[in-house]
Amino acid sequence: MCRWLAYIGAPVRLERALYSPAHSLIDQSLHSRLGAEATNGDGFGVGWYDDNPTPGIFRSIEPAWNDQNLRELAAHVTSGHFFAHIRAAIGSAVQQTNCHPFRHGRWLFMHNGFIGDLPRVKRDLALAIDESLYPEIAGQTDTELLFYLALTMGLEDDPLEAVARTIGVVEAIGNAKGVKYPFQGTIATTDGERMWAFRYSSEGKSRSLFYTGNITTLRKLYPDREILFEASDDARLVVSEPIGDLPGAWNEVPESSCGVVGRGEDHMRPFKVKPPSRSVLVGA
Amino acid sequence: MCRWLAYIGAPVRLERALYSPAHSLIDQSLHSRLGAEATNGDGFGVGWYDDNPTPGIFRSIEPAWNDQNLRELAAHVTSGHFFAHIRAAIGSAVQQTNCHPFRHGRWLFMHNGFIGDLPRVKRDLALAIDESLYPEIAGQTDTELLFYLALTMGLEDDPLEAVARTIGVVEAIGNAKGVKYPFQGTIATTDGERMWAFRYSSEGKSRSLFYTGNITTLRKLYPDREILFEASDDARLVVSEPIGDLPGAWNEVPESSCGVVGRGEDHMRPFKVKPPSRSVLVGA
Amino acid sequence: MCRWLAYIGAPVRLERALYSPAHSLIDQSLHSRLGAEATNGDGFGVGWYDDNPTPGIFRSIEPAWNDQNLRELAAHVTSGHFFAHIRAAIGSAVQQTNCHPFRHGRWLFMHNGFIGDLPRVKRDLALAIDESLYPEIAGQTDTELLFYLALTMGLEDDPLEAVARTIGVVEAIGNAKGVKYPFQGTIATTDGERMWAFRYSSEGKSRSLFYTGNITTLRKLYPDREILFEASDDARLVVSEPIGDLPGAWNEVPESSCGVVGRGEDHMRPFKVKPPSRSVLVGA
Amino acid sequence: MCRWLAYIGAPVRLERALYSPAHSLIDQSLHSRLGAEATNGDGFGVGWYDDNPTPGIFRSIEPAWNDQNLRELAAHVTSGHFFAHIRAAIGSAVQQTNCHPFRHGRWLFMHNGFIGDLPRVKRDLALAIDESLYPEIAGQTDTELLFYLALTMGLEDDPLEAVARTIGVVEAIGNAKGVKYPFQGTIATTDGERMWAFRYSSEGKSRSLFYTGNITTLRKLYPDREILFEASDDARLVVSEPIGDLPGAWNEVPESSCGVVGRGEDHMRPFKVKPPSRSVLVGA
Repeated sequence: MCRWLAYIGAPVRLERALYSPAHSLIDQSLHSRLGAEATNGDGFGVGWYDDNPTPGIFRSIEPAWNDQNLRELAAHVTSGHFFAHIRAAIGSAVQQTNCHPFRHGRWLFMHNGFIGDLPRVKRDLALAIDESLYPEIAGQTDTELLFYLALTMGLEDDPLEAVARTIGVVEAIGNAKGVKYPFQGTIATTDGERMWAFRYSSEGKSRSLFYTGNITTLRKLYPDREILFEASDDARLVVSEPIGDLPGAWNEVPESSCGVVGRGEDHMRPFKVKPPSRSVLVGA
Repeated sequence: MCRWLAYIGAPVRLERALYSPAHSLIDQSLHSRLGAEATNGDGFGVGWYDDNPTPGIFRSIEPAWNDQNLRELAAHVTSGHFFAHIRAAIGSAVQQTNCHPFRHGRWLFMHNGFIGDLPRVKRDLALAIDESLYPEIAGQTDTELLFYLALTMGLEDDPLEAVARTIGVVEAIGNAKGVKYPFQGTIATTDGERMWAFRYSSEGKSRSLFYTGNITTLRKLYPDREILFEASDDARLVVSEPIGDLPGAWNEVPESSCGVVGRGEDHMRPFKVKPPSRSVLVGA
Repeated sequence: MCRWLAYIGAPVRLERALYSPAHSLIDQSLHSRLGAEATNGDGFGVGWYDDNPTPGIFRSIEPAWNDQNLRELAAHVTSGHFFAHIRAAIGSAVQQTNCHPFRHGRWLFMHNGFIGDLPRVKRDLALAIDESLYPEIAGQTDTELLFYLALTMGLEDDPLEAVARTIGVVEAIGNAKGVKYPFQGTIATTDGERMWAFRYSSEGKSRSLFYTGNITTLRKLYPDREILFEASDDARLVVSEPIGDLPGAWNEVPESSCGVVGRGEDHMRPFKVKPPSRSVLVGA
Repeated sequence: MCRWLAYIGAPVRLERALYSPAHSLIDQSLHSRLGAEATNGDGFGVGWYDDNPTPGIFRSIEPAWNDQNLRELAAHVTSGHFFAHIRAAIGSAVQQTNCHPFRHGRWLFMHNGFIGDLPRVKRDLALAIDESLYPEIAGQTDTELLFYLALTMGLEDDPLEAVARTIGVVEAIGNAKGVKYPFQGTIATTDGERMWAFRYSSEGKSRSLFYTGNITTLRKLYPDREILFEASDDARLVVSEPIGDLPGAWNEVPESSCGVVGRGEDHMRPFKVKPPSRSVLVGA
């Protein structure tokens, strides 16, 4: 299990979101309040957009809380949209290629949760990945499989549909193999302009997911919080666990939902998994 | 702050002491029950004796709980005397040369605690180290300074006296610089035959230190614990925090004490710091 | 491209084979004389047998020449049979799970060479791996695929046959995808008792492979070389590149051959690839 | 021995200088043409200026040629002034705190060379460092000592004078201890506005140092080299070893010289070491 954070808004130094607040993401790497595991010390990753065609990625296998390079990067890199993720490995190795976020072209992808009984379903999931994408798989995590499955299912064209179909395949293969709850977790993915955040689990008891409410309201509530006045009006944080100590700042994403933020209008909608057609499963 | 364990007795695989018991040292690296810091994820080290003239040392900057090489080493190395240490860095970098145990010739040395206000006293302590030992300092920790100070004070001839004088110098220099409590912690050191464990702090509220009691008694208390029957009659564990879930197994080393175990008779005695003579301080 | 060494004989400290000779394997990690790449600095691994049911493995992503832990391990671990490997990565990440030797049960496996145009054939090769073995794949190298293919083909029962069939599958899939030379390299594998070393390439220009000749003869040639007199009469080194500066010590394994050493009689035989039957390929 | 590069000019992505040219610094990390050691695989570092008060630093113990994070950073960080350094360790550990460039406030410092017989003079050099700076020493290299000595000698006020006095102290202490050639190497230091590059050795046979000549002339010589037309007219590279394959592009800094570039007029002047006064040495 892991923790993650996504920021979208006016450009800020990464450290403003990663280190500054009380209960910041980096604090959470040492002791989390809501998570299944208390410590997230098995590597971390940051992905950020700038004027390059491809987002940057910095991943390390050291615990985030004492990583000097992360501290430097966060103090010197400014971005209007970035993902950050801290890992608590379950079963797979502590190595950079297992750290989130994952990247393909302009897309980033990260996840807090797991595919149930991965060893039993891993091969079938890998086979469902498009042949042209298969050689890109570099690590051994369930999340990377989810990402390449989603790309196979058309993530770049219709993320909502693609993730619905991806989890559909995960559930179909899992069920066929006798896995009770094939999917658990929250997912964030983005093309750099618009970001999709999902909360779903086969069991119906999904890991937590929160987003910041209206900044103007928050400023009235907390007139002495500098960080709120620095933030742009449209700034959004989406996080696996609330950050900072501002009651009223965080709205929970409902169970089985998908929120969309970024360029264009924000909205929240129910998320429904799309089971694969029979032929797809046979193909797998 | 850190955790440590020392084993002396019949040869066992390291994993028997490091991984097997409930609340093992490796478990403690993730969540400690008594410690000042909950997580000890800033590197670890193991030092062990075999038929080589010099003990072996394995140190890594990765958290111990997921380090695959430690797991392999622990499964394949057998030793009748070894030290293990997990680190929670306070101020200094996460790097191998800051990981305990430290080694000089046949001696090993490790520590849980700190020198108060290290930046203020560091240079004076370094100057008190013998000129021939100074170039051996490879890291930046207070513990390594303590070790080379102790070697300067005659650790190899009379460990009890040398550590008493070492902490004496630390307290004298600290006091001269206005540090309220110059020393805190527990120390273990050994020449491979005999091991000295110290519990002391300038404040008189020292970090915890425990040792196993009589194995024969324990076997009667816990007739179904395989590990107790594998252990040799004279096996001893000395630990910063109790390991396993055997009430009655652990005796606390009293405040301001030094225990000596190994070849020859075991004993426990009060530990008294020896302030330096005036001339030594002027020399520093 | 990489370098490797295999030792079988009376137990010695690993350092005797890894560090002591001129042009030792560790020297070769910095500057190789015969290899395609001059520097092998992308990680290394050691696998050794002792009285444990499973061989030990130590792998690291740091260059071997300055790795302090490798030096310690080599000075303290004694074994009568071990593999050592230094890596020059071509395309895949520098991570422990990409370091040789690979292990499954009592078997070790390492390789110097490559599968031609891996991205094009990777998925098909993965599909040819037995379903029960697939989840064990932890890294992204061609060698790990070769190992699990060989296990699928019966490595544990008949290594010669299994490797012949493995390379047969690699060549068949490669040819089907238009890869000119699908396989290149030398392979060593062992069950701890007996070791098989292969030299083969689709092109017929295979990477080098050498083994030590008769120790008694060598002792007469070099009466002042201590290391030769320490070695047991039946000690054997098999290496990708000659080690030390003893003309006459090394015999070249001929092109397209397999040597078998260890318990029982040693022998060398021609190695012929076994193409898969049609049905296997359709299955893949 | 090491390699280094310093860039000052219009802002460019780091990768333009680090990766793009033939014989780039990263290429040189694998095989150098002029250096004492062929491979520089013992870590690297980059320091860069942006609109932050303090320059950023990224340092890693992995070989530069395969470091994925360096590649990302270089593709995403833009700077008008940066230092890059690749290490070949001689004697000291491979750890981040031993990687160049070193930083203090706005100052960066890096070095290719060594202090002769460091173990013999290390303690005396450390004692000559100002007490307030001593606790900042984090690693164990000669270069870090040089840097803190130079800061002690007034680097921030008069770099030329401070480095002259620093090497003066190194030579005086070395000579007193019987070291034949106490200093060797090239040094670069900067406050972010102006950069000083030194070439000097006690032996009078200093390691190489080069700088780019007039860009306008180069453009006429090589009208088809895109990189020359992207560079600003006042861009300068100062390097330990020529980069790229442009005969005529590189001017050698003469033996015992110091070049100054950056804001204000560039100039080159003879460099003369300033021996310490008698009292300083006695103080040390």
